[in-house]
Amino acid sequence: MKTEELQYPGSKRVYAPGQIFPDLRVGMREIELEDTVFPDGSSEPNAPVRVYDCSGPWGDPAFSGSVQEGLPRLREAWIQARADVQQAESGGYLHAADPLSPPTQRAYALSGRITPEMEYVAIRENMGREAAFKAVYDRFPSAKSRPEEAQLLLDELGTGMPRPSELEADAQFSHRSLHPRRDLNYAHPADYAARTGTHMPAFFTPEFVRDEIAAGRALIPANINHPEAEPMIIGRRFLCKINANIGNSAISSGIEEEVEKLRWAIHWGADTVMDLSTGADIHRTREWILRNSPVPIGTVPMYQALEKCHGRVEDLTWPLFRDTLLEQARQGVDYVTLHAGLLERFVPHTAQRATGIVSRGGSILAKWMMLHRQENFLYTHWEEICTILATYDVAVSIGDGLRPGSIADANDFAQLAELEVQGDLTRSAWAHGVQVMNEGPGHVPLHLIPENMRKQLEWCHEAPFYTLGPLPTDIAPGYDHITGAIGGAIIAQRGCAMLCYVTRKEHLGLPDKEDVREAVVTYKLAAHAADLAKGHPAAQLRDNALAKARFEFRWEDQFNLSLDPHKARAYHDLTLPHANAKKAHFCSMCGPNFCAMKLSEEIRDTFH
Amino acid sequence: MKTEELQYPGSKRVYAPGQIFPDLRVGMREIELEDTVFPDGSSEPNAPVRVYDCSGPWGDPAFSGSVQEGLPRLREAWIQARADVQQAESGGYLHAADPLSPPTQRAYALSGRITPEMEYVAIRENMGREAAFKAVYDRFPSAKSRPEEAQLLLDELGTGMPRPSELEADAQFSHRSLHPRRDLNYAHPADYAARTGTHMPAFFTPEFVRDEIAAGRALIPANINHPEAEPMIIGRRFLCKINANIGNSAISSGIEEEVEKLRWAIHWGADTVMDLSTGADIHRTREWILRNSPVPIGTVPMYQALEKCHGRVEDLTWPLFRDTLLEQARQGVDYVTLHAGLLERFVPHTAQRATGIVSRGGSILAKWMMLHRQENFLYTHWEEICTILATYDVAVSIGDGLRPGSIADANDFAQLAELEVQGDLTRSAWAHGVQVMNEGPGHVPLHLIPENMRKQLEWCHEAPFYTLGPLPTDIAPGYDHITGAIGGAIIAQRGCAMLCYVTRKEHLGLPDKEDVREAVVTYKLAAHAADLAKGHPAAQLRDNALAKARFEFRWEDQFNLSLDPHKARAYHDLTLPHANAKKAHFCSMCGPNFCAMKLSEEIRDTFH
Repeated sequence: MKTEELQYPGSKRVYAPGQIFPDLRVGMREIELEDTVFPDGSSEPNAPVRVYDCSGPWGDPAFSGSVQEGLPRLREAWIQARADVQQAESGGYLHAADPLSPPTQRAYALSGRITPEMEYVAIRENMGREAAFKAVYDRFPSAKSRPEEAQLLLDELGTGMPRPSELEADAQFSHRSLHPRRDLNYAHPADYAARTGTHMPAFFTPEFVRDEIAAGRALIPANINHPEAEPMIIGRRFLCKINANIGNSAISSGIEEEVEKLRWAIHWGADTVMDLSTGADIHRTREWILRNSPVPIGTVPMYQALEKCHGRVEDLTWPLFRDTLLEQARQGVDYVTLHAGLLERFVPHTAQRATGIVSRGGSILAKWMMLHRQENFLYTHWEEICTILATYDVAVSIGDGLRPGSIADANDFAQLAELEVQGDLTRSAWAHGVQVMNEGPGHVPLHLIPENMRKQLEWCHEAPFYTLGPLPTDIAPGYDHITGAIGGAIIAQRGCAMLCYVTRKEHLGLPDKEDVREAVVTYKLAAHAADLAKGHPAAQLRDNALAKARFEFRWEDQFNLSLDPHKARAYHDLTLPHANAKKAHFCSMCGPNFCAMKLSEEIRDTFH
Repeated sequence: MKTEELQYPGSKRVYAPGQIFPDLRVGMREIELEDTVFPDGSSEPNAPVRVYDCSGPWGDPAFSGSVQEGLPRLREAWIQARADVQQAESGGYLHAADPLSPPTQRAYALSGRITPEMEYVAIRENMGREAAFKAVYDRFPSAKSRPEEAQLLLDELGTGMPRPSELEADAQFSHRSLHPRRDLNYAHPADYAARTGTHMPAFFTPEFVRDEIAAGRALIPANINHPEAEPMIIGRRFLCKINANIGNSAISSGIEEEVEKLRWAIHWGADTVMDLSTGADIHRTREWILRNSPVPIGTVPMYQALEKCHGRVEDLTWPLFRDTLLEQARQGVDYVTLHAGLLERFVPHTAQRATGIVSRGGSILAKWMMLHRQENFLYTHWEEICTILATYDVAVSIGDGLRPGSIADANDFAQLAELEVQGDLTRSAWAHGVQVMNEGPGHVPLHLIPENMRKQLEWCHEAPFYTLGPLPTDIAPGYDHITGAIGGAIIAQRGCAMLCYVTRKEHLGLPDKEDVREAVVTYKLAAHAADLAKGHPAAQLRDNALAKARFEFRWEDQFNLSLDPHKARAYHDLTLPHANAKKAHFCSMCGPNFCAMKLSEEIRDTFH
């Protein structure tokens, strides 16, 4: 797969500088738009749209690196500059110089220190609105001194669609004039967001980021040994993120294929990638993935530990697991799933379930506890685990080994009992300076989804929630990317910070390239729908730009602003393949004499 | 397309008899299941699962009819027996014998009369649970005299998973013993449903159906001239229904292709089909569709009226429209979309919109009003329209010509103003004995969806809501079946009675066969997720059966219980193509030595 194959049409990669750290180069994708052409032949330019970009250097046509070399070590200088890490004698990896002062983003945030990582994610979340904000303040200097009204104005920038000309015509600073529909009795995203506890700032600042991390409401997974990764933040007051799983298994896949899958997944928008490899070569596969990944990499270390016992659960021991965890932490894994909340006494409660234990990690531990009649060693060694994680700034994703595998098992005793323990573990990991998130279900009917979010926020002290789906029905194998996107949109709207994708092969087989693409785009769609509802201040800009392009029959812009421009264009071409149809003032659904949008253009002309 | 090609594997069509009308034969699909085989080699049978079936005689391998002959006239004898209709002198169609006593299901319901159509839909909604209910009452005669506890027990039958052996072991009548997890603090669907106003009965009776129709909360679209249709009900206290659009346009499609599309759409589960043809041959295309359709057919008569004026909006007149409406009513159209709520004074409110008017019918009327400076003729002639509709029992779907075409326009003044008028029109149509539903949006962000449902219920007096999506983001062309399914599941959960599908070609081109299949299954999935959340008493049986099959590695059953068995099987075969993998006690995701379900089977054995 050549870098050129992974480019979006009409787009370029741009870099925004930092203010606190002027050397920062925050990568984004900028989509160029055509001019609006009016019936009288005059035209007006449309400002380009900047969108969040997960592809890293691989998405930059100017980047000439290769998979063999690995990516540039973006964060290395920042990490070294902090001088709280040192090189291991035995090898090249870094670790904390002083165990009492761990080099974690959480520790920095708690001590009031803003890191380059924090400014990076603030700029990233603003998605290029720096210029727009500057323009508003230039035009309305008074807005700066009236923060409440400024906030409303800035909200409007994100959620309404003021045009430059409207701003110009507006002699007085008034948010109402920008948006005539504000008089109506409809729920504004900001009101909604405030009610649901996901209130968004109008603009992300490094200080806001620091505060969210210090409070434990957000994390930046960023192992000091994975300097290739571009900082990204997971928390409910930011864009909802999505994770894609890759990984070879005993049945198929090779190393090169896994790196290709990584690049493919991040091209479509995966914010993090979990390497769930189980076969041979786990260490080497992961090395290739880490050195080529601009996104955080997560793992489930239990899988490798079990490989080391040749799949014999009874042979698992704490020392063997600890060594595996250390190996992965040193290598640069950014977050690890640990099913430490699955206690021995919960296991019998799964015996009456419709689908027992469906988590791989969970069932391994359950079997181990059953064989040895001992408590979960991840739980009993939690303090030691946290010390290891803090040494490298590995974040922990506390697993839900007892997540429901069917509608019948949703929100049952076993599931909720583990969630309570996840909450206890969260607090003690925080005490070690470790960044934390919690994993959640699974198969849950729509009406039980809010309870999951509510209890997680309450019991886990607002640590970010990271769910698999949830899937609100069991009857759609072959379509479970959609099932999961429905549940995902709903839980993300209520504050879930990251959604783990489910592909259409879920429950059936291993995903191929097309399955990964379809799943990533589907979850991106669900996460974006939630961001709109949460009132993320930059989210609606892209919808508005696409709606305007659609209304004005700028077909190329409509494709280019889409989550999947290639597919949008291909579908259009199936009905109207000729190049001049891309300029046509009608669409394929209605034909040339019968188009709703063409008619309403005429109405607009009459009333203007 | 031969009838054999449209069969589901492991299934047969079965017919349930009526009790009030013993001659009724209510068609359903019955899925045969394999036995459960225990590790000790013993086995236990699994009861077959009956599912709702929209395919009519086309889904019955024993049916030998052809498209040329059309379907048997199932309802003809019922209609004739009511003796309130007469044959037209000029042709074969039926109409009301007495204009003051219209032959509509609403009129019958109001007069306290239970029709065969009403019993048919009651049996259909129960999805074969008659035998289960009889078994419970046989086992626990006391349940009959304790209706409250019986209700709980019957709820459990729908939502828990009692096995025959559990019923046997249960000496005392107690719902709790059936479902150990009821002790937990989780929201029961029935509680949830009561809170959201969609409370479901444990069992559907013809009297319940009659009452819902009389109250206007449900309708059975059943034109007296479309006796081929199997009765079905649209209302929020029943299964959520989905509609598929077909129809040729100036750019493509022929008649045979449209009938094929109809059969294809109902095979996958479309509950009604709208024929939105706009090109030549509208009348003849519709005739073929009606004579071959076991589901209600809806139309937008404005499209044909405009064809008659050769697309010249200025030439539209009320007499021309009236004749078109009459023509369609006589032919057998079951429901018509009329954009009668779009008033002249609302049109200027669309001029400031991001995407103006996106409804075809709406923009035609807006243009007509603009050209003639007159009020919408559908509004001014509403009483006469209702008289025509009542004469043939054509239901009206009051259109939303000003539905938002983008996130930016959601819930704006124009949209909500029309919704209020839809409410007024609903009441006056009811007064004529006409069955009514209301159409809704469109593009709406997640947080504004509940307001749509709430206002529609309030302003339109609980008439069924029928929405297009809604689509909670604009940025996913190529994936808008998914976007719409997310919004659709949410609004259906809150009481929307029918979802109009959106295909992945929406905004881009005309759907082909695969697009229709993908869209119907996707919406079926969304509607089913909502049915589970609403607490439809029969909905979860299929999830439970599939989850049990999955847990027990009965791969064939898992495929056969799916919404799309062919796709589920094909995906599985891509990874594990060998026939014996269908019997394997592991799945392709984890390989033979590493399967979560295999491990938890062992746990279950230990604790049992």
